[in-house]
Amino acid sequence: MPESDLTSLLDVALDEARAGLAEGGIPIGAALFAADGTLLGRGHNRRVQDGDPSMHAETAAFRAAGRQRDYRKTVMVTTLSPCWYCSGLVRQFGIGAVVVGESRTFTGGRDWLAEHGVDVTLLDDERCVTLMEDFIAARPELWHEDIGEAP
Amino acid sequence: MPESDLTSLLDVALDEARAGLAEGGIPIGAALFAADGTLLGRGHNRRVQDGDPSMHAETAAFRAAGRQRDYRKTVMVTTLSPCWYCSGLVRQFGIGAVVVGESRTFTGGRDWLAEHGVDVTLLDDERCVTLMEDFIAARPELWHEDIGEAP
Repeated sequence: MPESDLTSLLDVALDEARAGLAEGGIPIGAALFAADGTLLGRGHNRRVQDGDPSMHAETAAFRAAGRQRDYRKTVMVTTLSPCWYCSGLVRQFGIGAVVVGESRTFTGGRDWLAEHGVDVTLLDDERCVTLMEDFIAARPELWHEDIGEAP
Repeated sequence: MPESDLTSLLDVALDEARAGLAEGGIPIGAALFAADGTLLGRGHNRRVQDGDPSMHAETAAFRAAGRQRDYRKTVMVTTLSPCWYCSGLVRQFGIGAVVVGESRTFTGGRDWLAEHGVDVTLLDDERCVTLMEDFIAARPELWHEDIGEAP
Protein backbone atom coordinates (compact mmCIF):
# COMPACT_ATOMS: atom_id res chain seq x y z
CA MET A 1 0.00 0.00 0.00
CA PRO A 2 1.45 3.47 -0.86
CA GLU A 3 2.49 5.64 2.08
CA SER A 4 -0.25 8.19 1.27
CA ASP A 5 -2.85 5.43 1.77
CA LEU A 6 -1.21 4.37 5.03
CA THR A 7 -1.36 7.98 6.22
CA SER A 8 -5.10 8.06 5.57
CA LEU A 9 -5.42 4.93 7.73
CA LEU A 10 -3.28 6.63 10.38
CA ASP A 11 -5.69 9.57 10.35
CA VAL A 12 -8.36 7.27 11.82
CA ALA A 13 -6.05 6.26 14.66
CA LEU A 14 -5.04 9.89 15.17
CA ASP A 15 -8.69 10.94 15.45
CA GLU A 16 -9.04 8.31 18.19
CA ALA A 17 -5.97 9.61 20.01
CA ARG A 18 -7.30 13.16 19.92
CA ALA A 19 -10.71 11.98 21.15
CA GLY A 20 -8.97 10.30 24.08
CA LEU A 21 -7.10 13.50 24.91
CA ALA A 22 -10.34 15.52 24.76
CA GLU A 23 -11.82 13.09 27.31
CA GLY A 24 -8.90 13.72 29.67
CA GLY A 25 -7.24 10.45 28.73
CA ILE A 26 -3.96 9.25 27.31
CA PRO A 27 -3.75 10.27 23.63
CA ILE A 28 -3.02 6.99 21.89
CA GLY A 29 -5.36 5.69 19.19
CA ALA A 30 -5.51 2.65 16.95
CA ALA A 31 -7.62 1.03 14.26
CA LEU A 32 -7.76 -2.45 12.76
CA PHE A 33 -8.38 -2.71 9.03
CA ALA A 34 -9.01 -5.53 6.58
CA ALA A 35 -6.59 -5.87 3.67
CA ASP A 36 -8.92 -3.85 1.40
CA GLY A 37 -8.97 -0.94 3.85
CA THR A 38 -12.33 -1.78 5.43
CA LEU A 39 -12.39 -0.58 9.03
CA LEU A 40 -12.94 -3.51 11.42
CA GLY A 41 -12.58 -1.68 14.72
CA ARG A 42 -11.17 1.52 16.20
CA GLY A 43 -10.44 2.67 19.72
CA HIS A 44 -8.24 4.60 22.11
CA ASN A 45 -6.58 4.19 25.46
CA ARG A 46 -9.21 4.16 28.22
CA ARG A 47 -7.13 3.94 31.42
CA VAL A 48 -8.42 7.24 32.76
CA GLN A 49 -11.93 7.24 31.28
CA ASP A 50 -12.88 3.72 32.43
CA GLY A 51 -10.26 3.13 35.13
CA ASP A 52 -9.28 0.22 32.89
CA PRO A 53 -5.55 -0.44 32.49
CA SER A 54 -6.22 -3.28 30.03
CA MET A 55 -7.59 -0.96 27.37
CA HIS A 56 -4.58 0.23 25.48
CA ALA A 57 -5.41 1.68 22.09
CA GLU A 58 -4.56 -1.44 20.06
CA THR A 59 -6.44 -3.68 22.47
CA ALA A 60 -9.45 -1.37 22.28
CA ALA A 61 -9.43 -1.48 18.46
CA PHE A 62 -9.01 -5.27 18.50
CA ARG A 63 -11.91 -5.57 20.94
CA ALA A 64 -14.12 -3.28 18.86
CA ALA A 65 -13.53 -5.55 15.85
CA GLY A 66 -15.19 -8.43 17.71
CA ARG A 67 -14.47 -12.08 17.04
CA GLN A 68 -12.55 -12.59 13.82
CA ARG A 69 -11.49 -15.97 12.55
CA ASP A 70 -8.32 -14.94 10.70
CA TYR A 71 -6.16 -11.88 11.28
CA ARG A 72 -3.38 -12.69 8.83
CA LYS A 73 -4.45 -10.07 6.28
CA THR A 74 -5.46 -7.43 8.80
CA VAL A 75 -3.51 -4.24 9.49
CA MET A 76 -3.20 -2.69 12.94
CA VAL A 77 -2.60 1.04 12.68
CA THR A 78 -1.50 2.82 15.83
CA THR A 79 -0.34 6.33 16.63
CA LEU A 80 2.46 5.02 18.89
CA SER A 81 4.80 2.05 18.65
CA PRO A 82 3.04 -0.87 20.38
CA CYS A 83 4.11 -1.78 23.91
CA TRP A 84 4.91 -5.41 24.81
CA TYR A 85 1.30 -6.04 25.76
CA CYS A 86 -0.01 -4.82 22.41
CA SER A 87 2.89 -6.42 20.53
CA GLY A 88 1.98 -9.72 22.19
CA LEU A 89 -1.59 -9.24 20.95
CA VAL A 90 -0.34 -8.78 17.39
CA ARG A 91 1.89 -11.84 17.56
CA GLN A 92 -0.60 -14.17 19.26
CA PHE A 93 -3.44 -13.42 16.88
CA GLY A 94 -1.26 -13.37 13.78
CA ILE A 95 -2.10 -9.81 12.71
CA GLY A 96 -0.15 -9.51 9.46
CA ALA A 97 0.89 -5.88 9.43
CA VAL A 98 1.38 -3.00 11.84
CA VAL A 99 1.58 0.65 10.82
CA VAL A 100 3.21 2.81 13.49
CA GLY A 101 2.60 6.56 13.64
CA GLU A 102 5.72 7.28 15.63
CA SER A 103 8.36 5.56 17.71
CA ARG A 104 10.50 8.48 18.85
CA THR A 105 8.89 8.69 22.30
CA PHE A 106 8.53 4.91 22.87
CA THR A 107 9.99 1.76 21.31
CA GLY A 108 8.00 -1.21 22.67
CA GLY A 109 8.04 -4.44 20.67
CA ARG A 110 8.13 -3.27 17.07
CA ASP A 111 11.51 -4.80 16.23
CA TRP A 112 10.46 -8.06 17.90
CA LEU A 113 7.33 -8.14 15.75
CA ALA A 114 9.36 -7.57 12.58
CA GLU A 115 11.72 -10.39 13.62
CA HIS A 116 8.67 -12.64 13.93
CA GLY A 117 7.40 -11.94 10.44
CA VAL A 118 5.03 -9.02 11.00
CA ASP A 119 5.16 -6.36 8.25
CA VAL A 120 5.98 -3.25 10.30
CA THR A 121 5.91 0.23 8.73
CA LEU A 122 7.08 3.27 10.66
CA LEU A 123 5.57 6.52 9.34
CA ASP A 124 7.37 8.87 11.76
CA ASP A 125 4.40 11.24 11.59
CA GLU A 126 5.11 14.66 13.13
CA ARG A 127 1.53 15.04 14.38
CA CYS A 128 1.85 11.82 16.39
CA VAL A 129 5.24 12.85 17.77
CA THR A 130 3.97 16.25 18.91
CA LEU A 131 0.87 14.74 20.50
CA MET A 132 2.92 12.32 22.61
CA GLU A 133 5.73 14.74 23.45
CA ASP A 134 3.24 17.32 24.70
CA PHE A 135 1.32 14.71 26.69
CA ILE A 136 4.43 13.20 28.31
CA ALA A 137 5.66 16.67 29.28
CA ALA A 138 2.27 17.58 30.77
CA ARG A 139 1.40 14.28 32.52
CA PRO A 140 4.58 12.26 33.11
CA GLU A 141 3.10 10.31 36.06
CA LEU A 142 0.15 9.15 33.96
CA TRP A 143 2.40 8.17 31.08
CA HIS A 144 4.68 6.14 33.36
CA GLU A 145 1.68 4.43 34.93
CA ASP A 146 0.40 3.44 31.50
CA ILE A 147 3.64 1.71 30.52
CA GLY A 148 4.11 0.05 33.90
CA GLU A 149 7.08 2.11 35.06
CA ALA A 150 6.87 2.08 38.82
CA PRO A 151 7.63 5.33 40.73
CA MET B 1 5.97 -19.22 48.86
CA PRO B 2 5.54 -22.99 49.50
CA GLU B 3 3.90 -25.00 46.69
CA SER B 4 0.89 -25.76 48.92
CA ASP B 5 0.25 -22.00 49.21
CA LEU B 6 0.63 -21.57 45.46
CA THR B 7 -1.90 -24.35 44.94
CA SER B 8 -4.41 -22.49 47.10
CA LEU B 9 -3.89 -19.42 44.89
CA LEU B 10 -4.34 -21.64 41.83
CA ASP B 11 -7.68 -22.81 43.26
CA VAL B 12 -9.02 -19.27 42.78
CA ALA B 13 -8.00 -19.30 39.12
CA LEU B 14 -9.41 -22.80 38.69
CA ASP B 15 -12.75 -21.68 40.12
CA GLU B 16 -12.75 -18.95 37.49
CA ALA B 17 -11.98 -21.44 34.72
CA ARG B 18 -14.82 -23.70 35.83
CA ALA B 19 -17.19 -20.73 36.01
CA GLY B 20 -16.27 -19.89 32.42
CA LEU B 21 -16.95 -23.45 31.31
CA ALA B 22 -20.34 -23.41 33.07
CA GLU B 23 -21.21 -20.27 31.09
CA GLY B 24 -20.41 -22.06 27.83
CA GLY B 25 -17.05 -20.35 27.53
CA ILE B 26 -13.39 -21.27 27.27
CA PRO B 27 -12.23 -22.70 30.62
CA ILE B 28 -9.21 -20.59 31.44
CA GLY B 29 -9.09 -18.61 34.66
CA ALA B 30 -6.64 -16.27 36.35
CA ALA B 31 -6.17 -14.15 39.44
CA LEU B 32 -3.78 -11.36 40.39
CA PHE B 33 -2.52 -11.30 43.97
CA ALA B 34 -0.44 -8.93 46.06
CA ALA B 35 2.76 -10.32 47.62
CA ASP B 36 0.94 -11.06 50.90
CA GLY B 37 -1.70 -13.14 49.11
CA THR B 38 -4.38 -10.43 48.99
CA LEU B 39 -6.57 -10.92 45.94
CA LEU B 40 -6.42 -7.88 43.65
CA GLY B 41 -8.55 -9.17 40.78
CA ARG B 42 -9.85 -12.41 39.26
CA GLY B 43 -11.43 -13.30 35.95
CA HIS B 44 -11.86 -15.77 33.14
CA ASN B 45 -11.82 -15.89 29.38
CA ARG B 46 -14.90 -14.07 27.99
CA ARG B 47 -14.61 -14.61 24.22
CA VAL B 48 -17.89 -16.50 24.00
CA GLN B 49 -19.81 -14.81 26.81
CA ASP B 50 -19.13 -11.20 25.72
CA GLY B 51 -18.05 -11.77 22.12
CA ASP B 52 -14.82 -10.16 23.33
CA PRO B 53 -11.57 -11.65 22.03
CA SER B 54 -9.51 -9.24 24.15
CA MET B 55 -10.62 -10.78 27.42
CA HIS B 56 -8.24 -13.65 27.98
CA ALA B 57 -8.19 -14.85 31.58
CA GLU B 58 -5.05 -12.99 32.62
CA THR B 59 -6.25 -9.78 30.96
CA ALA B 60 -9.61 -10.12 32.72
CA ALA B 61 -7.92 -10.54 36.11
CA PHE B 62 -5.60 -7.59 35.40
CA ARG B 63 -8.60 -5.48 34.39
CA ALA B 64 -10.54 -6.47 37.50
CA ALA B 65 -7.63 -5.29 39.65
CA GLY B 66 -8.10 -1.76 38.31
CA ARG B 67 -5.33 0.82 38.12
CA GLN B 68 -2.28 -0.20 40.15
CA ARG B 69 0.84 1.89 40.40
CA ASP B 70 3.37 -0.91 40.88
CA TYR B 71 3.07 -4.55 39.81
CA ARG B 72 6.59 -5.69 40.74
CA LYS B 73 5.47 -7.62 43.81
CA THR B 74 2.24 -8.95 42.32
CA VAL B 75 1.69 -12.57 41.29
CA MET B 76 -0.39 -13.56 38.26
CA VAL B 77 -1.83 -17.04 38.74
CA THR B 78 -3.31 -18.70 35.67
CA THR B 79 -4.67 -22.16 34.91
CA LEU B 80 -2.88 -22.26 31.54
CA SER B 81 0.53 -21.07 30.39
CA PRO B 82 0.07 -17.47 29.19
CA CYS B 83 -0.15 -16.81 25.45
CA TRP B 84 2.00 -14.10 23.82
CA TYR B 85 -0.71 -11.51 24.42
CA CYS B 86 -0.90 -12.25 28.15
CA SER B 87 2.86 -12.72 28.40
CA GLY B 88 3.26 -9.28 26.87
CA LEU B 89 0.91 -7.94 29.54
CA VAL B 90 3.09 -9.44 32.28
CA ARG B 91 6.29 -8.05 30.78
CA GLN B 92 5.00 -4.55 30.02
CA PHE B 93 3.52 -3.97 33.45
CA GLY B 94 6.39 -5.58 35.32
CA ILE B 95 4.35 -8.26 37.09
CA GLY B 96 6.98 -9.96 39.21
CA ALA B 97 5.81 -13.56 39.27
CA VAL B 98 3.61 -15.92 37.28
CA VAL B 99 2.22 -19.20 38.59
CA VAL B 100 1.13 -21.53 35.79
CA GLY B 101 -1.39 -24.31 36.40
CA GLU B 102 -0.33 -26.31 33.39
CA SER B 103 1.64 -26.02 30.18
CA ARG B 104 1.15 -29.45 28.62
CA THR B 105 -1.59 -28.30 26.25
CA PHE B 106 -0.05 -24.91 25.40
CA THR B 107 3.35 -23.26 25.76
CA GLY B 108 2.91 -19.54 25.00
CA GLY B 109 5.52 -17.12 26.35
CA ARG B 110 6.47 -18.61 29.70
CA ASP B 111 10.12 -19.26 28.82
CA TRP B 112 10.39 -15.77 27.34
CA LEU B 113 9.07 -14.31 30.59
CA ALA B 114 11.57 -16.29 32.63
CA GLU B 115 14.37 -15.05 30.34
CA HIS B 116 13.23 -11.49 31.06
CA GLY B 117 13.39 -11.86 34.82
CA VAL B 118 9.86 -12.95 35.71
CA ASP B 119 9.69 -15.59 38.45
CA VAL B 120 7.75 -18.36 36.68
CA THR B 121 6.50 -21.44 38.58
CA LEU B 122 4.91 -24.35 36.74
CA LEU B 123 2.62 -26.41 39.00
CA ASP B 124 1.65 -29.02 36.38
CA ASP B 125 -1.72 -29.43 38.09
CA GLU B 126 -3.68 -32.46 36.86
CA ARG B 127 -7.03 -30.70 37.31
CA CYS B 128 -5.92 -27.93 34.94
CA VAL B 129 -4.56 -30.43 32.41
CA THR B 130 -7.80 -32.44 32.37
CA LEU B 131 -9.93 -29.32 32.05
CA MET B 132 -8.03 -28.12 28.98
CA GLU B 133 -7.62 -31.53 27.35
CA ASP B 134 -11.35 -32.19 27.63
CA PHE B 135 -12.19 -28.73 26.30
CA ILE B 136 -9.78 -28.91 23.35
CA ALA B 137 -11.15 -32.35 22.41
CA ALA B 138 -14.75 -31.11 22.63
CA ARG B 139 -14.37 -27.66 20.99
CA PRO B 140 -11.21 -27.60 18.86
CA GLU B 141 -12.49 -24.81 16.58
CA LEU B 142 -13.15 -22.52 19.54
CA TRP B 143 -9.76 -23.28 21.05
CA HIS B 144 -7.98 -22.51 17.78
CA GLU B 145 -9.92 -19.27 17.41
CA ASP B 146 -8.86 -18.20 20.90
CA ILE B 147 -5.16 -18.61 20.19
CA GLY B 148 -5.36 -17.04 16.74
CA GLU B 149 -4.77 -20.20 14.72
CA ALA B 150 -6.50 -19.58 11.43
CA PRO B 151 -8.51 -22.43 9.83
